[in-house]
Order: sequence, then structure tokens, then C-alpha cells
Amino acid sequence: MSTADRPTPPDRRRVGVALLGCGNVGAALVGLLLDRGDALAVQSGAQLELTGIAVADPSRPRPVHVPTELLTGDAAGMVADPSVDVVVELMGGLEPAGTLVRASLDAGKPVVTANKALLASPAGMALRALARERGVDLLYEASVAGAIPLVRALRESLTGERIDRVLGIVNGTTNFILTRMASDGAAYGAALSEAQSLGLAEADPTADVAGHDAAAKAAILAGVAFGYDVAGADVYCEGITGIDPALVAFAGRLGHAVKLLAVVERVTAAGGPPAASDPGELSVRVHPALVPTSHPLASVNGAFNAVFIEGEAAGELMLYGQGAGGLPTASAVLGDLIDATRNLVAGTTAPAPERTPARLHPSAELRSACCLSVEVDDEPGVLASVTAAFGAHGVSIRSMEQHDGPASGRARLVFLTHLARWGALSATIEDLAGLDTVERVGPAVPVLDVPVPEGGPR
Amino acid sequence: MSTADRPTPPDRRRVGVALLGCGNVGAALVGLLLDRGDALAVQSGAQLELTGIAVADPSRPRPVHVPTELLTGDAAGMVADPSVDVVVELMGGLEPAGTLVRASLDAGKPVVTANKALLASPAGMALRALARERGVDLLYEASVAGAIPLVRALRESLTGERIDRVLGIVNGTTNFILTRMASDGAAYGAALSEAQSLGLAEADPTADVAGHDAAAKAAILAGVAFGYDVAGADVYCEGITGIDPALVAFAGRLGHAVKLLAVVERVTAAGGPPAASDPGELSVRVHPALVPTSHPLASVNGAFNAVFIEGEAAGELMLYGQGAGGLPTASAVLGDLIDATRNLVAGTTAPAPERTPARLHPSAELRSACCLSVEVDDEPGVLASVTAAFGAHGVSIRSMEQHDGPASGRARLVFLTHLARWGALSATIEDLAGLDTVERVGPAVPVLDVPVPEGGPR
Repeated sequence: MSTADRPTPPDRRRVGVALLGCGNVGAALVGLLLDRGDALAVQSGAQLELTGIAVADPSRPRPVHVPTELLTGDAAGMVADPSVDVVVELMGGLEPAGTLVRASLDAGKPVVTANKALLASPAGMALRALARERGVDLLYEASVAGAIPLVRALRESLTGERIDRVLGIVNGTTNFILTRMASDGAAYGAALSEAQSLGLAEADPTADVAGHDAAAKAAILAGVAFGYDVAGADVYCEGITGIDPALVAFAGRLGHAVKLLAVVERVTAAGGPPAASDPGELSVRVHPALVPTSHPLASVNGAFNAVFIEGEAAGELMLYGQGAGGLPTASAVLGDLIDATRNLVAGTTAPAPERTPARLHPSAELRSACCLSVEVDDEPGVLASVTAAFGAHGVSIRSMEQHDGPASGRARLVFLTHLARWGALSATIEDLAGLDTVERVGPAVPVLDVPVPEGGPR
Repeated sequence: MSTADRPTPPDRRRVGVALLGCGNVGAALVGLLLDRGDALAVQSGAQLELTGIAVADPSRPRPVHVPTELLTGDAAGMVADPSVDVVVELMGGLEPAGTLVRASLDAGKPVVTANKALLASPAGMALRALARERGVDLLYEASVAGAIPLVRALRESLTGERIDRVLGIVNGTTNFILTRMASDGAAYGAALSEAQSLGLAEADPTADVAGHDAAAKAAILAGVAFGYDVAGADVYCEGITGIDPALVAFAGRLGHAVKLLAVVERVTAAGGPPAASDPGELSVRVHPALVPTSHPLASVNGAFNAVFIEGEAAGELMLYGQGAGGLPTASAVLGDLIDATRNLVAGTTAPAPERTPARLHPSAELRSACCLSVEVDDEPGVLASVTAAFGAHGVSIRSMEQHDGPASGRARLVFLTHLARWGALSATIEDLAGLDTVERVGPAVPVLDVPVPEGGPR
């Protein structure tokens, strides 16, 4: 074992901080560390000293406040440096981030990360287990819902709470798009373009609009709120690309807003909320949903995030704030960094209870009333064949509206179903997509919280 | 020193918990401790054992789940008992709670309390200082906004954050009354009676409706969010008793909701937000305010609480939930109890930074646009004398509405002023109250967040 592998115990008055990655969040964090050094020393019990910033290309121009002498291309060397006591990982992606986080934890150095993709991967679960075994902090407040102090609230304040359900608007891009579609009747494509022009959506928006980003966050929430290890890849995931403005308008007339939700809830194997003594199964999913306008989540608009928590004793809680952006995310990273430093000085760690793999509830077994839009050729007999597809799978229609389609000769049908199995809805959609007269079928958008007397989800 | 004064070090596998008080919250806490023993042991690292429950009258009937053999009238003896490691104080009021908390801290026993009156008193400040000196936890999540994980969020997650302003709806009773006045046009008295019949208001509602309860919470928030010691008695306090339904309706037409807010914000001595380098003065106050309906606080209705935090880096955050009730409050107490136990086992304490007395900003120097209702005799010349009173103090009127009064021969006038010094508004109200033709003057209700080019508060 080389000297570099065996860090000296940290000087109790100075803690060396290595930063991996210097994008928006990293640069904002550097600014906060430089601006607030004295206050941070009081709060953390140690002088935080930024010892290095590992970046892919040290020669690339950076914001003026980033000290160029700290930039390095040698991330692994920096992590191994004995002057480094805490590592902040803001590179994103699975590799080399995963290897560097592992090296840090192996060396007994606490890690603060905002890397939701890594945390929701099997590698992330192994890293959490490693941190636990080694008694080293692995903190990740910034990985879900940016500046919102959600992870610590779930981990510490609500630690005695039995949580029944978590509903999150955890992706600002899609919430912005859905808000524009609701407020202006904008089409999906136009709202997406606007988000892109405002810098709220990437040139390739797939990770956001297909729900993958929210699915990783749902997996992290399943761990923090329910104590189960869930991989992002195992999260049921339906994005917003198929959402029709006619459906959003229809929902509005029904007194509902369409929101992309990350949902984690306990259900019994038979569906429905389990008794207190039953660990039940966990439903972890991302999909657009109809949220009643009277619900606090319905008024979370634009790029804001919010997470609504239903606890047995605490009742209903909601935490709201900025889910992205350099400074807000850096603020969450900084809170964790102070926490990790304080724990290091005190010789303790944040609570990191052991996790068990979740028994995931199959989404096909869920039951909801759903909204569904179908774009059809506007000709006689079409409605009969469309409604026959619903009937073939036992899906009962509660109401229907017909609107002009996007082109002449087309019509848009929007349906609201009675309570139906999600499996039956999927089969209906598959059949509809196979009809010659059907041009496009949107996703089934479940109505949140319809009472379910037959034992389905709430 | 007797043996009872020198507690033996706690057995690391068992932590004795003494409960002071067994009202709604205490009884709910007993239920949670009994129901969730095993889960709590995992979370706290120790078996929590309820060793006694001190009540004023042990012979009084209690809910069936409260073990009668644990009831005692000897609170001081129970606190001193060496088998007690942690004390939970849910008696409320200054004494004997203050003496018992002091005895616990003196004996090195962490205290969890929900006692806002005590915490906001000079005795409470002394107790916090004592806990700091002794290195013993004094935790009080449940003292503000019930189940909302607010205190820990401010103390830990946002510890690196420079907070500019905190706006809280922290009293459910008054929020319920104002919500009813807005939704049904109910008069204040009718809405209060409804709150009383629902058990949301006391028979003597003064502490709630006069704003004293919210003022104690504002003082606690000033400490947790800004690090200043502020006494509840020093908080500027205007309640809702004088709020006229005509003013609530007028506010609604202006696109505002009337909310009773606890406000803590940094201002310069000259008014206005201070620069980062300037500690500034602190304005700590409770008063009804006009909140734009687009603001998240405006849709916090009924008995719910919410606290809106404006941070320099984190941006806007809001935490929402149940502010009262036995179970939600007990849930917050339980979170603190687990925290205190975990810290006791690890030999650490929660961060408790030193506090300094605040330089309080005089409310008379604040500047706002304000709404104001005046009930007058409906006769010629009245409007002239009323508007003259505004003019005499340099308060400029932006708009006015006249409505029928509560009785024939009476009229209600509702004014919206331009930006005005609060001192000038108070003087105007005093003059108006002295006019023969004026029957009643409501409080000046400032409009939240009007841009203030002249350096006043935001």
C-alpha cells in the first residue's frame, strides 16, 4: 500500500476538499466556497480548503472566479492525495465517476455527489453498501430535486415516520413543458422548443421527456423514503412525448392538471394500501397523471420541483423549490459538504440504514381511471372500432370528447375511462395502434387518487 | 451531590425516555413509541424505553393505550432518575417546564420539546445557551409548523446558505379563519365560531388571533434561520381580529389572498435588503399581508402551515404540511427523539451554533403599500375627513372602494395606499380612530413584495 493510499488523519482545523467536475454546479460551488469561507468554517467546525478541481480538459476556459492553478486532469491522483479529506463528485455519468467514488470511499474519504444516474444504478447501490461497511459518508442531497432539502428530511426528520406514498414533480423540463401546454394550449413540440431556447431542455431532450431522469430520482426516493434498493432501470417509466394538448385541455375542464409524477408507494400484492404490519410491495413508477387542481402539486408550475409525502403520523407534507440550476444545486451540495465535514471532525457519519431489495409491484396490476387521446381519420365508423377496442379489454368509457385534429380529415378523441387495470389499458392501446384508421395513440394518463373500492391503488 | 443527580452513563443498548405532559401530542407520542419499538431501535441505535410520564393529575382518565403504571405526579423526581437518559417536554407554558428542562440539561440529559412559548422567552434563550455549554442536545422541531421538517432543514441542509427572508404561515387557526373569509365571504366572527366548533380554535382564541402564537414561532425562526436570539415579546405583532371581509374581498379582486404571516428578513438600517457583507438589521414581525395569488403561500389553505424561504443560492423554497394536531406534532417530536438518541449513542450533539442578540429593525421604518378598511357613518363629508387624515401623514391613496356597512347608516371604505412608512400608516390609523364619524378602523395590511425603489423592504 503506497503512502498515497493511506490518508493521514485529517487536521481537525483544516479539511481538504477535492472537486470532480467543474460545470455549472461545480463552478457555482467553487464560488460559494471562496465567498463564504469564514462562515463555513464556523458551521462545519473546520477550515474547508479546496485542494484541486479535476476536469476533462484543464485548458478549457472557465469562469474567472475558478482558480486555474487548482485545475487538474488527474482525477484519480487527486482523490488519492493525502491532503484530500472529502471528495465532491459533480462529473455525472456512470464512469469514471463510479470508480473515483469507490476509490474515495475505499480510502475512507467521505463523498458528496449529485450523480443521480450513478446512484440509481447497480454500481450506485454497491457504493452505498460500501460506504455503510466502511463507516464513511456518501451524501447525495443534490441528486433529487436540487436545492429542496428532501433527502435529509426523509433520512432524519421523518426517520420515525411510516411513509405510505411519495409523489414528486422532480423534472423541471417536463414540468415547464406541461405548464406551457396547460396555460397557452401550446402543442408539445412548441413547448419543448421554448424550453430548449430558454436553456431548460437539452438539444437531445430524451432523458427528460421520456422520463428517464425522473425514473432515476424515483429509484433514489424509494431508497431514502422506504429503505429499499431499487434500480432506475426497474422503474416503470412513461414520458410526456405522447401528451396531446387536447388531453391537457380536457383534464383542465375536469378540474385537473397534467403533471409528470415520480410515484413511490406501498401496495399489497393484491393492490391497495397495506396494513401497518405488512411490508407490502413497492410500486415505483414515472408517468404523467391527472392531479386535481385542489392538490398542492397541481400549482407547482414552470421549472419548479416539489415532492409530496404522505406519512402515517405526519400526514401530508410538501417540499417545494428549484430542482435544477447551478447555484441552487450547489447550495444542496454545500449543505452535504458541511455535514460530511462536521461528521468527519466528530468521528461520526450520517445515518445510513441497511437496505433490502424491494419487492416491486407489477404496474400492469395497478388500477386507475385514465385519460387517453387518440388521433383518428375523421370518417364514419371510426368511433365504433375505437370503442370496440376498449370493450374488448373490459375497459369501460366514462366520457368522450371529439375535437378537430391537427390536419383536415383528422379528429382527436379524448376518453376518460372508469377504473381499469393498467394491463388492460396497455392492451387497449396496443390494439388501437394497430387499427388502420388510428394515426396516433397517446399514453394512458391515470387520474390521481380516485377512490378504489376494489382494492386497487388509491 | 446525590446519586440521583449523577446519572450513570446510558447503556448503549437501552435509552430511558421520560415524558413530561400527556395531552394530545404526548398521548400520540406514547402510541408511536409503543407501536414502532423495533423500527425505532434500528433507526436510533438503541432500544427506547419509556420510563415514566409526568402529569399534573395521574388519576385523570387517559387514552387506553397510555400505560397507567408509568404515570406520575413527580416530574422533578422522574427527570432526576438515573434510569432516564432523554427527556421529552410536552407540558407547554413557561413553568414548571423551564425548571424541568434546566434540570435535565444540567444533568446532561438531552431534551426534546415542542414548547414554543418557553423557547421564545428569555428563559428559553438561557436554556439554549446552557445546552450549548454543556454539550447536550436541546431539540425543538415540533415547536414551529408541527410535522414540517423545518428546523432541521434550516439548521442542517441550509446551513451553508445565506438566507434573506423567511415568510411563514405558522398558525393554522388564523389561516383557517382567513380561508373561510375568502372562500365564503364569511365575517371574522362567524369564521372564528366555525373554527371553534371544529376544535381548531380555543374557547379563548386570543393567543392565535392576536398573533402571539405566530410571534413566538417568528422568534424561533429568527434564531434557526438567521442565528439571532430574538424574544417573542420583541416581535412586532398585529393579529387578524380587525380584518374586515370587505378587505378580504377587495384583496381578492386585486389578485391577492390575505394571510397572517410570520416574517423574518434582513434589512439595512436604512431599509432594503443589505449587501452580503453587511449583517444588517433583522425585521421580525407578524401581521396579515396581501399575498399575490401566484405566490405558493397564497394557495396554502385551511389549517395547513407553510414556510417560504428565500436563500441567496438555494433560491425559493417552501415547506408545507400540517402545523398542528396530536399525531403530526408527535411525528416531529419522534424525529427529534431518534436524533437525540443517535447522538447520545455516538457521543455527539446536533449542531447548535452560538447566537448573538439581533439588532431589530424598527417596524415604523418599514415601507409598504397597504390595504386598510374603515367603517364610517354614511353621511356627507365623511370621505373628505377620512382622506384628509391620510394626507396629513403623507400617505397617498392609490384606490378606494365604498361598500355597504354591517348596519344601515354605515359604510365600509377600503383603501389601497401607495408606498408608505409604517409609522405614517399607524399615525393615520390613530387619527382615523379619533374621528367622530369613524366607527372602526382595521389594521394596515401591507402588500407583500411591492418593488421598493426608495430602499424600503421588498
